[in-house]
Amino acid sequence: MPRLLPIALSLSVLIAATWLPMAAMADDAATKPLGMAELLAASKPDAWRTPDPEQTLYLDLPAGRVIIELAPDFAPAHVANIQTLAKAHYFDGLSVLRVQENYVAQWGDPNAEDTAKRKALGDAKPNLAGEFQRQRSAELPVAKLPDGDVYAEFAGVSKGFPVAGKGDQIWLAHCYGMVGAGRGDTADSGNGAELYVVIGHSPRHLDRNVTLVGRVLLGMEHLTTLQRGTGALGFIEPPAPMTRITSIRLAADTPKAERTAIEVLRTDTPLFKQLIEARRTRRESWFLEPTGRIELCNVPIPVRLKP
Amino acid sequence: MPRLLPIALSLSVLIAATWLPMAAMADDAATKPLGMAELLAASKPDAWRTPDPEQTLYLDLPAGRVIIELAPDFAPAHVANIQTLAKAHYFDGLSVLRVQENYVAQWGDPNAEDTAKRKALGDAKPNLAGEFQRQRSAELPVAKLPDGDVYAEFAGVSKGFPVAGKGDQIWLAHCYGMVGAGRGDTADSGNGAELYVVIGHSPRHLDRNVTLVGRVLLGMEHLTTLQRGTGALGFIEPPAPMTRITSIRLAADTPKAERTAIEVLRTDTPLFKQLIEARRTRRESWFLEPTGRIELCNVPIPVRLKP
Repeated sequence: MPRLLPIALSLSVLIAATWLPMAAMADDAATKPLGMAELLAASKPDAWRTPDPEQTLYLDLPAGRVIIELAPDFAPAHVANIQTLAKAHYFDGLSVLRVQENYVAQWGDPNAEDTAKRKALGDAKPNLAGEFQRQRSAELPVAKLPDGDVYAEFAGVSKGFPVAGKGDQIWLAHCYGMVGAGRGDTADSGNGAELYVVIGHSPRHLDRNVTLVGRVLLGMEHLTTLQRGTGALGFIEPPAPMTRITSIRLAADTPKAERTAIEVLRTDTPLFKQLIEARRTRRESWFLEPTGRIELCNVPIPVRLKP
Repeated sequence: MPRLLPIALSLSVLIAATWLPMAAMADDAATKPLGMAELLAASKPDAWRTPDPEQTLYLDLPAGRVIIELAPDFAPAHVANIQTLAKAHYFDGLSVLRVQENYVAQWGDPNAEDTAKRKALGDAKPNLAGEFQRQRSAELPVAKLPDGDVYAEFAGVSKGFPVAGKGDQIWLAHCYGMVGAGRGDTADSGNGAELYVVIGHSPRHLDRNVTLVGRVLLGMEHLTTLQRGTGALGFIEPPAPMTRITSIRLAADTPKAERTAIEVLRTDTPLFKQLIEARRTRRESWFLEPTGRIELCNVPIPVRLKP
């Protein structure tokens, strides 16, 4: 009996099919609610979806590939700009500029603020209005969480993204693994040419302050293991080596043989509600206290390599 | 005007005095509440405390030193066992066994479960009752947070540690940077010979399931940048190299010249309450939405090198 902590599968963790305890299913299914591993092992193929290749970004670093799902329902203008930049190979050869412990990693053009030196943005727009929140709509059903949220009136998951909301407004939440577009002091000073990812405890006070554009589906470890910058705010300073971006491309623009075939669990299904409940009230034998509560950024949105 | 995200100083981040914007103080002090940087810059020496060297653990890794403050008020038996093990050099030469993305890093004896092969525990006890919660007491004042908590009746900070509670009970909370003692399936199967640290979004469902023993004050980056294990649950598997523990010692048992002189902001002061409010309602010019809410694991408990 190994002395372990239990399994955590949170927002950005790949599920390796190998450790799913298939054997537990038959015995327990009739007698008690299933845990997450059992629910996923028993899931039907249509419980999963293939992310749209036009909305999937491959951030290729020397250490490996980071896969980001874009969120056009929440940040259409920023997503369009990022797609334009990626198609123009804007990011290729740029670097990770900042890695701040328990906060964010950020990449892009180190001269973004210098109109003389900065890399040309081509057909992308230099400034975009902030896309901090939007109207709720029937096309964006929210799987609401039952235990409330410290930062908002409600919280839940919509179309594969963690969201929070108030009244008829809804916004993406700064959970671990979420990707945003840096901005300066004004709301319209971002454009998607400088992106960041949350690599620590979820800084929810950034919600509605900066535009989130997507979520890391796979490869978070290539960002979280980067050496922290020694400058103020975690900026990388000489003589520390810069991590160069090999390329940022849309999956749609990547030759088929070089794509990574993945699936994301759908979040508009009864199975996903069961999954939330399985993580909310832990029935795995290791747990002495089942908790009976769950907070937004601890809700798993599972991703797997295609079988 | 650099395109930045604002400063995040969360539980385990060192404050480098250099970036404190001292200049802002004189102008703004009379007219608006101070931000965190200003509050810390203006803090008196007695707002800080020096952690007790008997309750301070140095985890020395090849990459550098991780400093952990032990929490004898919350886990006296586990802390005593860890002190016994450290004094006997139990951990020296053992390894980091597990690094799981967005969850925990864990270290200790890979043969801990094998009574024949495992490293002898010496005077330390092989099994300890879980120390999952305790009675509130006047000696443990709690700086309570005003915005509630998803996982508990109340949350706050006590003697430098994030805590949650219900009625007259209080417990340490699994925030980023908190250190715990692994256990097996029963409450009394831990002993402090296998320790873990939270390296992702705070897994609060572990609260009251496993004994927390302290908090990383400095050096989190030496744990968070470790390569993730490729085995189930993030266990390190061959051929990946193991990260060896150079030593784990109490600061008190470390020659004075080899100690790291640090201070932690006291959390039982009016200044600390001001700090919480400064982080709860952001007045720095970058923020468009001041939020007006704060969640336990986003409360900073600042640490600095001694001036």
